[in-house]
Amino acid sequence: MNQDYIKADNWSIIEEEFDVERVKSSESLFSIGNGAMGQRANFEESYSGPTFQGSYIAGIYYPDKTKVGWWKNGYPKYFAKVLNAPNWIGIDIEINGENFDLFTCTQVKNFKRELNMKEGWYHRSFEATLANGTEIAVNVRRFLSLNLDEAGFINYEITPLNKDAKIVYKPYIDAGITNEDANWEEKFWEPLEVKKATHDAFVTAQTFKTHFKVTTFMHNTVLINGVPSQISASSIESTNDKVQYTYDTLVAKGEVSSIQKIGGYTVSLNHDNTLAAAEKVIQTALAKGYEASLQEQIDAWAKIWEMSDITIAGDVKAQQGIRFNIFQLNQTYLGKDSRLNIGPKGFTGEKYGGSTYWDTEAYCIPFYMATKDQEVARNLLTYRYNQLDKAIENAKDNLGFKNGAALYPMVTMNGEECHNEWEITHEEIHRNGAIAFAIFNYYRYTGDYSYIPEKGLEVLIGIARFWHQRASFSKDKNQFVILGVTGPNEYENNINNNFYTNYIAKWCIDYTYEQIQKVATEYPSDHKRIIEKVSLGDAELQDWKKVAGNMYFPKSEELGIYLQQDGFLDKDLVPVKDLDKSQRPINQKWSWDRVLRSPYIKQADVLQGFYFFEDHFTTEELKKNFEFYESFTVHESSLSPCVHSIQAAKLDKMDMAYAFYLRTSRLDLDDYNKEVEEGCHITSMAGTWMSIVEGFGGMRVKDNALHFAPKIPKEWEGYSFKINFRHQILKIEVTQNETKFSLEGDQALTVFVNGKEVVVQPN
Amino acid sequence: MNQDYIKADNWSIIEEEFDVERVKSSESLFSIGNGAMGQRANFEESYSGPTFQGSYIAGIYYPDKTKVGWWKNGYPKYFAKVLNAPNWIGIDIEINGENFDLFTCTQVKNFKRELNMKEGWYHRSFEATLANGTEIAVNVRRFLSLNLDEAGFINYEITPLNKDAKIVYKPYIDAGITNEDANWEEKFWEPLEVKKATHDAFVTAQTFKTHFKVTTFMHNTVLINGVPSQISASSIESTNDKVQYTYDTLVAKGEVSSIQKIGGYTVSLNHDNTLAAAEKVIQTALAKGYEASLQEQIDAWAKIWEMSDITIAGDVKAQQGIRFNIFQLNQTYLGKDSRLNIGPKGFTGEKYGGSTYWDTEAYCIPFYMATKDQEVARNLLTYRYNQLDKAIENAKDNLGFKNGAALYPMVTMNGEECHNEWEITHEEIHRNGAIAFAIFNYYRYTGDYSYIPEKGLEVLIGIARFWHQRASFSKDKNQFVILGVTGPNEYENNINNNFYTNYIAKWCIDYTYEQIQKVATEYPSDHKRIIEKVSLGDAELQDWKKVAGNMYFPKSEELGIYLQQDGFLDKDLVPVKDLDKSQRPINQKWSWDRVLRSPYIKQADVLQGFYFFEDHFTTEELKKNFEFYESFTVHESSLSPCVHSIQAAKLDKMDMAYAFYLRTSRLDLDDYNKEVEEGCHITSMAGTWMSIVEGFGGMRVKDNALHFAPKIPKEWEGYSFKINFRHQILKIEVTQNETKFSLEGDQALTVFVNGKEVVVQPN
Repeated sequence: MNQDYIKADNWSIIEEEFDVERVKSSESLFSIGNGAMGQRANFEESYSGPTFQGSYIAGIYYPDKTKVGWWKNGYPKYFAKVLNAPNWIGIDIEINGENFDLFTCTQVKNFKRELNMKEGWYHRSFEATLANGTEIAVNVRRFLSLNLDEAGFINYEITPLNKDAKIVYKPYIDAGITNEDANWEEKFWEPLEVKKATHDAFVTAQTFKTHFKVTTFMHNTVLINGVPSQISASSIESTNDKVQYTYDTLVAKGEVSSIQKIGGYTVSLNHDNTLAAAEKVIQTALAKGYEASLQEQIDAWAKIWEMSDITIAGDVKAQQGIRFNIFQLNQTYLGKDSRLNIGPKGFTGEKYGGSTYWDTEAYCIPFYMATKDQEVARNLLTYRYNQLDKAIENAKDNLGFKNGAALYPMVTMNGEECHNEWEITHEEIHRNGAIAFAIFNYYRYTGDYSYIPEKGLEVLIGIARFWHQRASFSKDKNQFVILGVTGPNEYENNINNNFYTNYIAKWCIDYTYEQIQKVATEYPSDHKRIIEKVSLGDAELQDWKKVAGNMYFPKSEELGIYLQQDGFLDKDLVPVKDLDKSQRPINQKWSWDRVLRSPYIKQADVLQGFYFFEDHFTTEELKKNFEFYESFTVHESSLSPCVHSIQAAKLDKMDMAYAFYLRTSRLDLDDYNKEVEEGCHITSMAGTWMSIVEGFGGMRVKDNALHFAPKIPKEWEGYSFKINFRHQILKIEVTQNETKFSLEGDQALTVFVNGKEVVVQPN
Repeated sequence: MNQDYIKADNWSIIEEEFDVERVKSSESLFSIGNGAMGQRANFEESYSGPTFQGSYIAGIYYPDKTKVGWWKNGYPKYFAKVLNAPNWIGIDIEINGENFDLFTCTQVKNFKRELNMKEGWYHRSFEATLANGTEIAVNVRRFLSLNLDEAGFINYEITPLNKDAKIVYKPYIDAGITNEDANWEEKFWEPLEVKKATHDAFVTAQTFKTHFKVTTFMHNTVLINGVPSQISASSIESTNDKVQYTYDTLVAKGEVSSIQKIGGYTVSLNHDNTLAAAEKVIQTALAKGYEASLQEQIDAWAKIWEMSDITIAGDVKAQQGIRFNIFQLNQTYLGKDSRLNIGPKGFTGEKYGGSTYWDTEAYCIPFYMATKDQEVARNLLTYRYNQLDKAIENAKDNLGFKNGAALYPMVTMNGEECHNEWEITHEEIHRNGAIAFAIFNYYRYTGDYSYIPEKGLEVLIGIARFWHQRASFSKDKNQFVILGVTGPNEYENNINNNFYTNYIAKWCIDYTYEQIQKVATEYPSDHKRIIEKVSLGDAELQDWKKVAGNMYFPKSEELGIYLQQDGFLDKDLVPVKDLDKSQRPINQKWSWDRVLRSPYIKQADVLQGFYFFEDHFTTEELKKNFEFYESFTVHESSLSPCVHSIQAAKLDKMDMAYAFYLRTSRLDLDDYNKEVEEGCHITSMAGTWMSIVEGFGGMRVKDNALHFAPKIPKEWEGYSFKINFRHQILKIEVTQNETKFSLEGDQALTVFVNGKEVVVQPN
């Protein structure tokens, strides 16, 4: 843990006290989003202290020219960057002639931020004394509408406390913004058109190169004591990319002056005429009004929580953690639009770029599968199907593969690879495995086989071909090997025979082979169509089987473990518990060579393999491997603690399971990895969900049935979660004494609890 | 071989025929330098075709901000870039009102370039027809004075062939230049002062950040039929970084008009007042005059050749190759200034940056030791001694070592590391070994032990400490291992137990230990001073010995070879001869992961180890290792073929030895690696020298005596070389029938020829 300033609360994220050192972290933690857009919790008024400004629009990116020290063949030409979008929240404020800026105030009291996750709004309040002596009380609420997802609402209230005040509101929209992490310090937005009309303003701009057109808009209403005034702007300033209105108000001491700002974006992904669309959004929002829109927001979030909430009794921090994770996942991706995906930072930061990593398949799909309609997971699979051609092109043109072998990108927006470090881009090929695994997992959970003959099998064939070609035969070992890879444990590069990679490669080939046989039998016309399309002959299939049937896996008979890679036991095996704390996190303290030759593990990929393929191994094998690898794991990947939590629970190591649960669920709230100011770790939040459902709940799907093995940390009185299983909603409540099921559905559901059959009747 | 347009000639590099596709390659090959400055063979007149402009000043660099895709701890903040220096050679020319530009001429005939290596000048001649119909004959000679090494001379002659012509000469100097490979498209030069006086001009500029001050100067003389005219400039244009004079001449058909330009640089490394120094250089040059300066140049080069020439009879291409190598080495570094070193591209290009690589110690020192006074090699060693503190700082601050362990930089100007790829910067640590080996080699060759107690031992201790700390103990192997390195074969990254690295690490510790004992006995006061300075205790020494005494070396008993690294035999071992030619050079055709997992070797580092430590292995061992590794070596490092040539000669594989000799000696002339337009491979040229002296000549130094094992390729009638051995000059002449020695010195020298003692009497 690196910080603990967030107040424990069941439903809200709360910060009390203003601290300039925490502004950037809080900007990440209090971010809001609605699936279509989002932004960091930047202040509306100007702020001259350290801040990281960020507004983001789903699906809008820019191909930033690749920056590398030493170019290598096969690097992509650009990196699809999450773009800092135009600012619509800005309101400069003057109080008695002084620009209001929390950084320059002489005093700030009773400062409080609240992110109310239950109702989906962000609120900030404080009392401040300006340099000119004016004291004011401020209350600001902001939310991004779930229902009208192109609009956001701000209600900004100011009460002069010690004297009458001239308060000038200067709301603006501004497309003249840059990215923090631009490679070439370029601007990404080209201004096209500015329009002003009474209290409305519109700036239309397009991204360079990708030509996404975005109209950023605002509508302003000034109120005195809550009553809309007829005040009009005293001036309107505009440039080619910014419009700013000025409203002068005279407010008596104790009176409440406020401005309501409606703003947001309409984008060319959804509209031919973004300006007209923006005008319509304003009309719709105004017709509803601020209060009714807020009520709608509360109702919409209630509906989400109804299905996806997890309750934990007796442990407020644990409760707050899981809700923060579920809330952020829903803020980031709601499954409405199959062109979108789940960016690793969501709408909370720029880092990493791209929207889609293997995180989606390995960590996120189970959450969306269980808390939404199965169509959402199918959309996420289809996203990859739609990008299959580009994955084949990537393998062929960049990496020298042939014959339809597909390598999906490490990072992508539109299917093209946009990462540029050889040890990742070219070698972290295990990502292909997770994409195949997700297809298996989707069918296992939903029972919907139709996806495979329709789309999935083509993806599987491209992936199996890749593995077949990527493995090579070692005469020395008389087995197939996979050389020069980076596994999920990114603290090793260019290693040989990474257990996880070799294992999933073999599995992909075997699974694809089985599906080809099954589709041939059960969907013969699809089989014919696909086999002809991909020109797959029997000789090739036999070659695949040779590779899968004779794959090498490094292991130590003596220790009874699989080896993370060849030569792992040559390392200086000092466990993490004996590593001086001053050396951590090692990725911030050590040079890269030292990280690489150390035994320390960012996320244990042998255990990731055991997680995916739990049934292939005995519990005794799991125990040996878990105990060995856990002792070297530093969990500097956000994706690490959740898997350890699940496996610790399975191994009845409940204290560990609980500690890992806290770590995954409060990773950002407590800033374990000292980096939350760059944004939150969105995709790993789905791992947190898994650590409850699959870890403590012990949920598995086998042979079309749900299995549970409920356990409970001693710190908890009880916990509950709901899952959508094949169109029925099952709720599981676990206390120290019992496990209860309740079912919304039209037929009884047979589940297994610790191997024992239980028939759950509908409510 | 990739090109063969260079005409074979014993003493000159000659190109005939103007081809715009070859301009950049020829700009590299016809480069001239004098140790203090140099430039590519850019045209003096303007040229609008593809060109790569480059002028360079020894020791002048710029710390370019590091550019990486993903920053890693331990990266240096900047890359010391070889700077493109101000242009002093430029002469724009107008013929009858048309700007003369070879790229736009309607015809170019009898074009010829000659780089006369014997006399040290570059000449260009041709006849051209301008678009306006004027035909001219042009003769240009340029040289950089060895004696007055701040000055260069140009004599530019034009003869109108078909009509009278108004010829306007517009000579200029220009500090407004940029680098081809600037990371951030910045300018590196800040203009300070411009001065003009009659026919002289001076532009003083300084480099940003490093603040090297340079005055670039010129003096112009216009001549008609070889007689200086009293013509004065019709105009003088200047900006803050450029001065250009205009001289108008009217030249009758058939008459010879010419301009003589003296130009060059004076730098703050050598002068407090660079402007005054420049004025003095012009006075000195003018007092001597063009013709006398040219004669001095011829005499100065004759003196260099007298000592360093290697003759080859009966094979003009082989003769041309070796002389080109010797000529370029002398153009690059003459050993006059201990602050300088031997940049990998010399004055022929910008690529790689920095001036000092392990090339200096591993490849260059033997050449300079044998063809110059031993003081030159001692200067090169001292350069590293002077940078020891920075090597210790680098190991400590960037890489986490302690207690005086030193890691010398991969690339440097001033002792600070300035390379920025983890797999090189952090892992190509074998460079430390070559620096220690050079100390051993210097003593072995010169017999001058005094360097070790004076300076060398401190360097050795820093290096031994590094290896001691860098090795780690493998419980699994019960031996010490070195994990995560890149060997000299850069087509492997982050490998474990690279044979070469492990071997030289062990040798460094053993050798340092021996030197400590020897200095203790023979130089006790130095021993005391050093041991106190570095706080070296007996316990630490015993720890060193443990590592050196129990180092692991990977090998295959079955094949009778050492393994390049752990797991090498797992590769798909298809020899180079079976690799499709269309796939080469693999570093230009394949993605990096494919290069890495292939068995192909850039330069065989097991063989490099056998080269350094030949006596440690039997000839049978050499043969097995050579045959195995040669079959996988693609020689895409310029440093590779020379070692293979030497070892092939030793193994009586004379056809191979000859082929590798041609490859190393004509690497740039024939552009084997398809990259000569970026500049020549200067440091490997010393390897070419070794392939004659140590390869065909079989020269070794053992127990203070010279040993030879002369061999001769069947293609040659004979060859000869001279070496300066302990202040006596020995000449060796080898023909198909005999080997003859002659000696300049005052006492007889005993040498061994194929193991047989031969006493050579002085001439």
